[in-house]
Amino acid sequence: MATRAASEAICAGLLPEDCAIQSMPSVSPLKWHLAHTSWFFEQFLLVPRLPDYQVFHPLFEHLFNSYYYTKGQMHPRAERGLLSRPSMDEVLGYRAHVDAGIKALLSADHRGELIGLTELGIQHEQQHQELMFTDIKHVFSVNPLQPAYREASAGSTSRGPVEMFYREFPGGISELGAKGDGSRFCFDNETPRHRTLLRPFALANRLVTNSEYREFVNAGGYRDSALWLADGWTWLQQECIERPLYWSEDLQQEFTLHGPRSIDAKSPVSHVSFYEADAYARWAGARLPTEAEWEVAAKGVVDDSARPITLSPSSASPASGNLQQLFGTLWQWTQSAYSPYPGFKPLTGSLGEYNGKFMCNQMVCRGSSCVTTPGHSRTTYRNFFYPHERWQFFGVRLAKDVAG
Amino acid sequence: MATRAASEAICAGLLPEDCAIQSMPSVSPLKWHLAHTSWFFEQFLLVPRLPDYQVFHPLFEHLFNSYYYTKGQMHPRAERGLLSRPSMDEVLGYRAHVDAGIKALLSADHRGELIGLTELGIQHEQQHQELMFTDIKHVFSVNPLQPAYREASAGSTSRGPVEMFYREFPGGISELGAKGDGSRFCFDNETPRHRTLLRPFALANRLVTNSEYREFVNAGGYRDSALWLADGWTWLQQECIERPLYWSEDLQQEFTLHGPRSIDAKSPVSHVSFYEADAYARWAGARLPTEAEWEVAAKGVVDDSARPITLSPSSASPASGNLQQLFGTLWQWTQSAYSPYPGFKPLTGSLGEYNGKFMCNQMVCRGSSCVTTPGHSRTTYRNFFYPHERWQFFGVRLAKDVAG
Amino acid sequence: MATRAASEAICAGLLPEDCAIQSMPSVSPLKWHLAHTSWFFEQFLLVPRLPDYQVFHPLFEHLFNSYYYTKGQMHPRAERGLLSRPSMDEVLGYRAHVDAGIKALLSADHRGELIGLTELGIQHEQQHQELMFTDIKHVFSVNPLQPAYREASAGSTSRGPVEMFYREFPGGISELGAKGDGSRFCFDNETPRHRTLLRPFALANRLVTNSEYREFVNAGGYRDSALWLADGWTWLQQECIERPLYWSEDLQQEFTLHGPRSIDAKSPVSHVSFYEADAYARWAGARLPTEAEWEVAAKGVVDDSARPITLSPSSASPASGNLQQLFGTLWQWTQSAYSPYPGFKPLTGSLGEYNGKFMCNQMVCRGSSCVTTPGHSRTTYRNFFYPHERWQFFGVRLAKDVAG
Amino acid sequence: MATRAASEAICAGLLPEDCAIQSMPSVSPLKWHLAHTSWFFEQFLLVPRLPDYQVFHPLFEHLFNSYYYTKGQMHPRAERGLLSRPSMDEVLGYRAHVDAGIKALLSADHRGELIGLTELGIQHEQQHQELMFTDIKHVFSVNPLQPAYREASAGSTSRGPVEMFYREFPGGISELGAKGDGSRFCFDNETPRHRTLLRPFALANRLVTNSEYREFVNAGGYRDSALWLADGWTWLQQECIERPLYWSEDLQQEFTLHGPRSIDAKSPVSHVSFYEADAYARWAGARLPTEAEWEVAAKGVVDDSARPITLSPSSASPASGNLQQLFGTLWQWTQSAYSPYPGFKPLTGSLGEYNGKFMCNQMVCRGSSCVTTPGHSRTTYRNFFYPHERWQFFGVRLAKDVAG
Repeated sequence: MATRAASEAICAGLLPEDCAIQSMPSVSPLKWHLAHTSWFFEQFLLVPRLPDYQVFHPLFEHLFNSYYYTKGQMHPRAERGLLSRPSMDEVLGYRAHVDAGIKALLSADHRGELIGLTELGIQHEQQHQELMFTDIKHVFSVNPLQPAYREASAGSTSRGPVEMFYREFPGGISELGAKGDGSRFCFDNETPRHRTLLRPFALANRLVTNSEYREFVNAGGYRDSALWLADGWTWLQQECIERPLYWSEDLQQEFTLHGPRSIDAKSPVSHVSFYEADAYARWAGARLPTEAEWEVAAKGVVDDSARPITLSPSSASPASGNLQQLFGTLWQWTQSAYSPYPGFKPLTGSLGEYNGKFMCNQMVCRGSSCVTTPGHSRTTYRNFFYPHERWQFFGVRLAKDVAG
Repeated sequence: MATRAASEAICAGLLPEDCAIQSMPSVSPLKWHLAHTSWFFEQFLLVPRLPDYQVFHPLFEHLFNSYYYTKGQMHPRAERGLLSRPSMDEVLGYRAHVDAGIKALLSADHRGELIGLTELGIQHEQQHQELMFTDIKHVFSVNPLQPAYREASAGSTSRGPVEMFYREFPGGISELGAKGDGSRFCFDNETPRHRTLLRPFALANRLVTNSEYREFVNAGGYRDSALWLADGWTWLQQECIERPLYWSEDLQQEFTLHGPRSIDAKSPVSHVSFYEADAYARWAGARLPTEAEWEVAAKGVVDDSARPITLSPSSASPASGNLQQLFGTLWQWTQSAYSPYPGFKPLTGSLGEYNGKFMCNQMVCRGSSCVTTPGHSRTTYRNFFYPHERWQFFGVRLAKDVAG
Repeated sequence: MATRAASEAICAGLLPEDCAIQSMPSVSPLKWHLAHTSWFFEQFLLVPRLPDYQVFHPLFEHLFNSYYYTKGQMHPRAERGLLSRPSMDEVLGYRAHVDAGIKALLSADHRGELIGLTELGIQHEQQHQELMFTDIKHVFSVNPLQPAYREASAGSTSRGPVEMFYREFPGGISELGAKGDGSRFCFDNETPRHRTLLRPFALANRLVTNSEYREFVNAGGYRDSALWLADGWTWLQQECIERPLYWSEDLQQEFTLHGPRSIDAKSPVSHVSFYEADAYARWAGARLPTEAEWEVAAKGVVDDSARPITLSPSSASPASGNLQQLFGTLWQWTQSAYSPYPGFKPLTGSLGEYNGKFMCNQMVCRGSSCVTTPGHSRTTYRNFFYPHERWQFFGVRLAKDVAG
Repeated sequence: MATRAASEAICAGLLPEDCAIQSMPSVSPLKWHLAHTSWFFEQFLLVPRLPDYQVFHPLFEHLFNSYYYTKGQMHPRAERGLLSRPSMDEVLGYRAHVDAGIKALLSADHRGELIGLTELGIQHEQQHQELMFTDIKHVFSVNPLQPAYREASAGSTSRGPVEMFYREFPGGISELGAKGDGSRFCFDNETPRHRTLLRPFALANRLVTNSEYREFVNAGGYRDSALWLADGWTWLQQECIERPLYWSEDLQQEFTLHGPRSIDAKSPVSHVSFYEADAYARWAGARLPTEAEWEVAAKGVVDDSARPITLSPSSASPASGNLQQLFGTLWQWTQSAYSPYPGFKPLTGSLGEYNGKFMCNQMVCRGSSCVTTPGHSRTTYRNFFYPHERWQFFGVRLAKDVAG
């Protein structure tokens, strides 16, 4: 119920219109997120398990299905923003109806048989909470009025610059992935736990900063085809890409959830695509890490992911001599295509569509971001996006080969 | 002020979300209409004429310009639905601000020098009132929940069928168009008044009914290329057109401003494109009228356009032996391309963009519709749309040649 | 047979590859024109009329149908350039086969019953001869090697500049169109002959020259939205139009059937769209003529259309005090949308698709061009194209209103 | 010179028109391949190394650059089919000119310093030889006349069906990739040789046959979303995919380089995309191999790749108890995304664009095909294509996990 309430809290202070807009096909209206996460509980928990459960509205099965083809036809993704009804109020009513169903169901679940499915529903809703932040940011960004989601708190003290260095790892055989034995929650795509063989490698202690990235832009990085993957170069030319998504033309301002503000030189660069991350790394004489390297390196580091949501990524801490910004800052593009782990088996039934069917054409991101729900991240977590996407809180961590 | 209030009244009972949606590029959010009609008064009346007038918001000049290129850059038409802000409440505030300005301006206009511009602003707003009805109809139509704009009033008594007959006109030289001398309002595209030479012709007494049009559909009219203009046939195949815009697949139901309801056989068929109207006429062994024929025929008929808005087109009246449904029912496609009248001169300045620059690729519609603001129609009125458009209240009146 | 031979002569000196290329959907490979004109005779003359006629190849009915839907399915227009087979040699064999059939048929047509259809086939082939010139010009123009269709003949003596003046016409009632009584060939779209009422008007004695048009470009004509129709402005921006189709960026060179060469200041500007012609006229304080005005003015002028094909438009003659360049120079855009004449009836059967079904969205051009087959032009001829098209030999003649 | 002559021999018997057509953007005209492979030698060998070398034509550097951005601007790929010139004859002249240059250069290369670059030019031309076969197959396939590239030889004796079985491999640490030390030719993407850790796995002894794949189609495989990757399902629906590329609607005929012929049940299914291969494997209760598994399994098998080109894939041999059809039959889709090997370094200079910049969004194919130049294949060869592509000779080999 805390997770359910948190979703609604994200919309506090927004207008009904704000929650209805879809600014591009990848974005969903906030009200759709509120309804879809309820649909998930309704379809996978209440309808099959709660006797005499009445669905809230017969058409909602169709309207709020995201991509579960085996659950039937769905409203087209790109048309989610055409629906003024159900209104925000009706959607909140839907949520209350589903919450009541969940409570009834779980109070009768004396043997805890539904804990697994319920946990999946909670994790699913937490994933959508992050999308709600990234989607409202995009919605506001395309509006010439440039509204702020929240006013900035006064005086976040700026910390001094932190030098970048590489920490070396010896390689060899390591265990990757999650056990999936129920001892701790994980998604099916993190399994099975398996061994892999790595060469020696090194990872940067912190993320690439705005100031470093601005150097790349000023050096003509977006006009030098030799730095780019072929598909990235085509994308850049077709879309006239010249800088990170939310940067102003003069490279001085960026749009944030606090509205437009000066780019902070020491904060990590955000909202770059995989293509941009990869080109930057090549320009810097480095490369992106593989997801295996990232996971091995992250294992020994304390996950500070219980920190509160900050709405913008924080700069690195001068005090630390270790890897930092692994979690809670920005998702980090890896050079690994999103593929099944050896021996991967998706969940059975419609829930098998959750992760497995996307294992093509996407790249793995690791870590978590400043708008990831606290507690939602872990070292084995595999996030995945198309290489041209930018509206998520994406950042860049560099890696290098080490002579073995 | 009555006209200004009428625009807001159209939105009464709607939710803020309803007024923010753009369901296709031709449709504008209702809130945009409310703002744009205010922008028109602000830009053409208040800014140039009212001393010390403060614009409501510096960006609104950009956001609510529709197509006046000579007034500066404008927000792209297809992206009007991406703006959650300004909210409906802010737009109403904008309207109040502009209304106050108009009142101040006109109370000081002792010699009535601004009557012409004010009248233009009023007529402009009335045109947008009709668009508000057609746009909200489309917005609701694409929603699987199929909301009603207004509940239907009980018991509209159905009138008996009215036989179609053709009324003949002798042709010869007639005067067309409006004088444009200020004695009665007209748009620049209705001028200059000029003489034209017509052959004898005949016009149908009433519009084509749903039942007649359904026969055409059932007879395979949408599958017989010989009935269609080449561009119409291409359009029909690309868009998979098989029936009027709002008809259900079984040809029994149509979507209306009262929600879905049974198609009334005796009511006129509506929401057909020029291509469909033209193909139907060919199938029926007739043709569409020219705009000159329509105007000549309409001259002697009483304009009943002061009737209240009905939201759906009414069926013909059995009592009448004359031409009927000329006004207040459905716009009637003519076979005339929208071209300048001989000697046409557009208004000077930016207002010259109002009508003249659209005189290519569009077809003239005559009459008025069931959602035209009462008093807004006249025999010389020239409405114009692309031949594939259907979301306006379009209908079909047949014509024939008569041996001279 | 002279017409048939002339088509093949156009291809003399070209390579088989030249005759197979389709450089845009509006262009057809020359080999396709050679085959389609034969298909026309085969389908409308030989198959229905010549006993025991064997079609050359069973699939050619499908491959070389242009747009006669009622004759069956056809190969998609945009894919004509994907066909390496039939080869040029096979197509020439097809032509010989059809020619033999025509000879056999006509030698047995003792009562001349087939003269009408044969004449239509000849006129149809002459229309395609013009297209062959315009299409090969476009094919060569997109090739960076810029090949010449024919080497230029040495020393075309340049004539002095000819001042533009307007010749006035009184207006009143005139007869327009062709009788269509068989006394002289005409297309169905030129009928019926009918009366029209014109206001006094004036027509420019000659076409707009390259030098005059270059002034318009240099004056920023392509960047001033106030000069353009709305659809023209949209077209110009989407297609990045900045000058006539074949002009070089520096406005000094143009691509011709003789390859690239210096723009001749006194020659008429060519390969402009209706939108450009209309914008130029507005900039020049004039307008385009209506097709009725053009026809009335052309009536008293000697048609010099028996002149040989020149491949490029000639400049005006200083000697003349009359209207000139009506024929044999460039097609002249009118401001008239292509619509049916009052009382128009298309041919019966599939040949009714020849002209009538295109009477929407296109503009009428009058006159003829430097690549029109000699003898193919007349004052009542109605050519028609979409307003954005430029690859035909289009030019600009100005007109003006005259106080009545 | 044998390789150079082989390219020209592929065009023997074709018409000039056949060699000029581009049937889709991925296809290049055969004449373009002939010129581009010469451009490669000219740009990378002759221009930088042969004193006083005169380029054949100054524009060819632009026209026949494929994708080497660092070599300058290039003619757009999708417009290669718009060029009638240079003609086939001119291109052959270009080839002779380049051949003479190569001979002059190599005869003076006493110390063999240019062997590496020359070998790369030869391997590059061999790759294009395969594309010439696949491209002319596509060109002919879209022609309703369905021409044959070669007449089929009489009586290819059909061999009995071969049962499918899985051969198991123990996994563990293996060496992958090529040494790249110059001892044998390899592309940069095959390096560096490196160790990898595999779980036990099994590979099918032969490729999936037409008859097996037809069962999948008949069982509704193309209509069951649960079998497909998400992007594959989207692709299938948008492109209306219902069967392999060259199969007829009744699943009985396929288009081949010998023209249309009956589908041979025992031959391997060909011209399927990665999406289809992956869906088939899922339906069959198996999966596709990784590229590492394929390479490990292929190591001990005799490469029969010196066999002659057969134009169509041969069926499996009943005699064999080993893995077969690894080479010379069909490229085999793997489940591995095309990524850099650990420690990968592209070639320096423009040749670095050869392979490395494509390492995103593509899938690895292993083996070789019935139209691969004899001698061009090896176990470490990495071919790569987008997952939706079908016009290459692609086939399906199944794999399975084995309990470790």
